[in-house]
This record gives sequence, structure tokens and C-alpha cells, in this order.
Amino acid sequence: MAKKTAARSRRRTDSLSRELIIQAATELLDSGGESALTLRALTIRLSTGYGAIYHHVADKSDVLAAATDDLISRVLSAAAADPDPRETLRRLALGLFDAVDAHPWVGTELSRQVWRPALLDFYESIGRLMDALGAPEQARFDAAGALVNYILGVAVQNAANARYLAGSNTGRADFLDAAAAQWAQVDPSRYPFVQAAATRLREHDDREQFLAGVDIFLAGIATLS
Amino acid sequence: MAKKTAARSRRRTDSLSRELIIQAATELLDSGGESALTLRALTIRLSTGYGAIYHHVADKSDVLAAATDDLISRVLSAAAADPDPRETLRRLALGLFDAVDAHPWVGTELSRQVWRPALLDFYESIGRLMDALGAPEQARFDAAGALVNYILGVAVQNAANARYLAGSNTGRADFLDAAAAQWAQVDPSRYPFVQAAATRLREHDDREQFLAGVDIFLAGIATLS
Repeated sequence: MAKKTAARSRRRTDSLSRELIIQAATELLDSGGESALTLRALTIRLSTGYGAIYHHVADKSDVLAAATDDLISRVLSAAAADPDPRETLRRLALGLFDAVDAHPWVGTELSRQVWRPALLDFYESIGRLMDALGAPEQARFDAAGALVNYILGVAVQNAANARYLAGSNTGRADFLDAAAAQWAQVDPSRYPFVQAAATRLREHDDREQFLAGVDIFLAGIATLS
Repeated sequence: MAKKTAARSRRRTDSLSRELIIQAATELLDSGGESALTLRALTIRLSTGYGAIYHHVADKSDVLAAATDDLISRVLSAAAADPDPRETLRRLALGLFDAVDAHPWVGTELSRQVWRPALLDFYESIGRLMDALGAPEQARFDAAGALVNYILGVAVQNAANARYLAGSNTGRADFLDAAAAQWAQVDPSRYPFVQAAATRLREHDDREQFLAGVDIFLAGIATLS
């Protein structure tokens, strides 16, 4: 009996891969946030021991980095190239926005260390699209950098807002209602734009506003060529 | 003698203002970061008691919020209006970028709660500039929102990078050298853009790249009218 258990346990160890660990880590992170990811939780979820886990990953931050890279890689694979480079760029930008929105821990990890390996692929894709969009060679680096900064900056901030609301017992609609009510009450002679925008603030969609920014950026890139 | 001390202490209490507390708090935050700001440190710096402080502010987070608002207000006042709205917008954007760069605790506070009172003035300024730049009324809200998101997102991320480097014993130049060396070594057939951009990565200026993004955004806004 002891022999049989040992054999089964060895099979589990053999079949344990870095991919399986990343998948289990992503599930833990999605359900309970960063604090839910511990090596102990991984051993329980994967029915294995610490030794088997350490055979594939160095520590918690290694797992967190790998899970982040894995998610970004999947965004890049999913954003299939369109004949129109602007459409490909929109898909990439929205894919990253949605991924960070659905997995807020990715936002924290990205804001902690921007130069992730998977971002190399993201950067490469954006850089090539700048070329396809006709951005001159000397403007391409700054244009790609500014666009990557916009996409990551807004996606990360959006995830931070979601975490803030999640911790405050206020839903997004209630929060925007309260903010819009404040905007509606400002002095229109001092704040004409803010007062006029109060209704739009309540009804706006963060994802659409993010995409409107990408489109303005694309229109600006087109003027460089 | 005791009477004289009491009188002097009362004068100090009387002359203590919210402005003086905010100024002292900003000095504490600048020198030691957010952990250096305690009500005890404020009483020592201002040679006063807790009661006098609590007469003007509610708690630490109130002081932190007020110091953030104060800094943003000073950025807005300093960015004097130029006859060219694009120039005014550049000044506002760079002013906020520089303020967050010089006072990284502002970045943390802004990422924690985006809807600060002082940001109402920032939003109003950007909204009016969209009007001056000829953005049509229905596009103005999203354009202003996307631009504010870009400015805050990149400034906050830049401050986070600076804090990350400060905690890692690596200077910015060494960090970029190492990153550029990695970029230079990637497979040029898989990463042609990244490989070609390696030198630019090492030499680039975050502030200039940020401003290049603002300029692309402005060129995009001009196409809306």
C-alpha cells in the first residue's frame, strides 16, 4: 500500500509541469488576489509537495511573473492580425485592457516591474504596427513607447480603480452617480466644462473612452508620415 | 515663566493654519516618503500639540490628500496660459509629470484615488483646451478623459519606476544599460523593432517620450475638428 502511494505520488511529480503550476497560480490569483497565491496553496491544489513545485519555479514572485507573462502572451496570440494595422492595434490595446480588467493582479504586477519578458513581444508588435501605419523611422521609437505607456498606464489605473471600489463597498455605478452629482453642482461660471460633462461622466464607459484615446493616438500617428 | 510659555504656546496654536500643516507634511513626505508622515512628526516639526493639529485636519489621510491637492493646484497656477492652446497643454502635462517625478508620494496618492478635488481644476483646464483646439463638442469629453488618463497614467507609472529603482540599488542609467543590452541580443528575425531600438532605449529620456506622446495626441485631436 505504501509502495502504491509512493508510485502514484511520483507519477504526479513527473507529470507536474511549469505550465500546470502557472495555470493553478492563475486560478488562485483570480479567486483570491495576490495574497491567495502561496506555495502551500499550490501544493494543495496540485496534490503535490514543495519539492516538486520548487523543481519548476524559484519562489512566489517567479510564479507571479510567469503567470503575468502567460496572460500577456495569450492576449498577443488572441489579437489576430487584421489587414488594417489600425484594427490590429485596437485589438491588441483592448485585449490588454480587458485582460488587466479581468485579472486585476496583473495590473499590480505590471506597475511593479514594467519590463516583463512578454512585454518584449507586445513592444515588438506595437513597433511593427507603427511601421505599417507609416510612422517615420526616427519617430517610431517614441511613438511606440508613448502608446505602450498609454495602454499600460490606463489599463493599470483602471484595475486600481476597480480594486479601490471593491474595497469600499461602493459599486462603479453608485460611485459615478455620486461623482456626477458633484460635477453637476459645481459653479458653471468657474467650471463650464466639468458642469456640462456631468451627465457624460455618469454614463461613460471606461473601455470606450480608452479606445477613443487609442483612436486619437492613431489619428496623430497618421499625421507623422 | 510658566505663564510666558503658555502664552507662547497659545500663540503658536493660534498661528497654526491648515496651510502650515500642509507645508510641513509636504516636507516630511519629500524627505522620507509616506511612512515619514505621522501626526507625531507633525507636532514635533510644528512645535505644537495633537489638539492643535486635529483642529485643522481630520487624520493622516486627510493631510496626505490636502498635500496632493496643494501640489496639483500649484502645477495649474504655474502653467500660465499661452496664446497657443497646444503650448498651454504641453506646459500643464509636463508640469504634472515633473511634480509627480519630484514628489513620488503624489503618484501613489493619485493612483489610490483618482477623483481628487484639485483634479477637477485640471480636468476643467484640459476640457477648455479641447474646445480651444477645435475638438467637436461630442468628442470633447472622451478626448479630455483619454488625455487626462494618459498624463496621470504615465506620470504615476514613471514615479512607480523611480521608486522601484530606488529600492533596488540600481540607478536609472545602469538599469537602461542592462535592458538595452538585453534588447540588443534578441533574435533580429523575431524582434526586428526591439533589436533596432536597443540604442534608443538606452539613450531615451522619459520626459521627452512623454511629451512626444502628448504631441501625437494633439495632432490626433486636430484631425477631429
